[in-house]
Amino acid sequence: MEQVTVIKIGGNIIDNDAALAQFLKAFAATPGKKVLIHGGGKLATRLADKLEVPQQMIDGRRITDAETLRIVTMVYAGFINKNIVAQLQAAGVNAIGLSGADGNLVLAHKRTGAAHDYGFVGDIDAVNTSLLHQLLENDNTVVVAPITHDAKGQLLNTNADTMAQAIAQSIAAHYQVNLVYSFEKSGVLRNADDDTTVIPKIDPATYTQLKEEGAIFAGMIPKLDNAFAALTKGVNRVIIGNAQHLPQLIEGTSGTSIVHE
Amino acid sequence: MEQVTVIKIGGNIIDNDAALAQFLKAFAATPGKKVLIHGGGKLATRLADKLEVPQQMIDGRRITDAETLRIVTMVYAGFINKNIVAQLQAAGVNAIGLSGADGNLVLAHKRTGAAHDYGFVGDIDAVNTSLLHQLLENDNTVVVAPITHDAKGQLLNTNADTMAQAIAQSIAAHYQVNLVYSFEKSGVLRNADDDTTVIPKIDPATYTQLKEEGAIFAGMIPKLDNAFAALTKGVNRVIIGNAQHLPQLIEGTSGTSIVHE
Repeated sequence: MEQVTVIKIGGNIIDNDAALAQFLKAFAATPGKKVLIHGGGKLATRLADKLEVPQQMIDGRRITDAETLRIVTMVYAGFINKNIVAQLQAAGVNAIGLSGADGNLVLAHKRTGAAHDYGFVGDIDAVNTSLLHQLLENDNTVVVAPITHDAKGQLLNTNADTMAQAIAQSIAAHYQVNLVYSFEKSGVLRNADDDTTVIPKIDPATYTQLKEEGAIFAGMIPKLDNAFAALTKGVNRVIIGNAQHLPQLIEGTSGTSIVHE
Repeated sequence: MEQVTVIKIGGNIIDNDAALAQFLKAFAATPGKKVLIHGGGKLATRLADKLEVPQQMIDGRRITDAETLRIVTMVYAGFINKNIVAQLQAAGVNAIGLSGADGNLVLAHKRTGAAHDYGFVGDIDAVNTSLLHQLLENDNTVVVAPITHDAKGQLLNTNADTMAQAIAQSIAAHYQVNLVYSFEKSGVLRNADDDTTVIPKIDPATYTQLKEEGAIFAGMIPKLDNAFAALTKGVNRVIIGNAQHLPQLIEGTSGTSIVHE
């Protein structure tokens, strides 16, 4: 099967023009078919501040009220997505930027039944595999903003890590998919403040043990849960690591590899 | 040849949620392959006001400085484009929203040599006909935001009327293309303030005469010049009229038809 590399780029890289440009250069140089999913970074928060739209947080998670949804739609699907696409086009990559609403790429429903009302937040129901397949076969590199829709006209704010996982899984029947979560840290760290404590490889047994020891930074746990879920759904390999070391992550010489066993 | 309807929807409709919803319902009901190009409306101006980004105008045209480019990218390619796509998806249309940067759909260059520096404004060089063809053949309805790129990483603000014309022309070799400029007026009017003075048909001879008589509202002249240019480049028919009468415009029973002779 042909390979596809699905890469999630985290918010801290997006907030840093120089780091983003370096990442996009390495991304452009990555051979083969590719999908890029970007997070939102702090631009949306800064815009909300300027517009005096108060941002409510519960347990570190943003509540997406109607005004905040307008802002994240503008920032994620507009500003960030189109600037990434333009930079990739300049680097010779035939990038095409989509939200989950476009071509019904990622269908979701408004989150219900949670302890808190997170507002216009979408949990994913389905990925339009045939659209992805069509675009990839036409040598388009798909750049995805973390905005979905519910097919009833409602846009929804959706976690970019989860979108990357859902997209990677959805094409695993057609391609050998490697899923890379890239961000500002060097991988899964034993000590969140020490970038030299990367755990090079985590299998399910190691993961259970690390959680029991409390040896994994809490913020990493959803990422790792997503990674193991992706493996069980047919994704070939999941790598977590520093966006500035993209070639090494793809080679497997940097970051943390999440493996079946 | 199969028909494609290329429709430009003007700013005043976009500013009015009810009018836009009614238009999108009629658009969804229009049979066959379709492309929708939307303008920006006053949302960008309102956002610029809120963000205290001063808007400079020369002869009624906005100067797109770097801050304004950020705003129009967010509003046109983000907010408006994705909301239209979500509404069309809800109406059962497989809409996919793109800017000119996406898939190199519309390549442009920064305007030079004008009497004034309009800033980050793009004049169109080329349309990616094969991408449009690919999407239309896969039954995608393409929704285009008036933002282009220069293939060097720069996004550019581009006139939506001109984009509609360039897109219509670009596919005229593959399809029988009808180009509809829809807005808040009933067509080309003899008296700009009287919606009952629609000129039903304009050919080149009539056009020359109307201009000589000063019988056409000055703001219509670029639209008509674009319309005649499109006809000479293979577009089948150009119709100018009220967005609320879309079925009648397409049938030819409302609005102004621009014809060769």
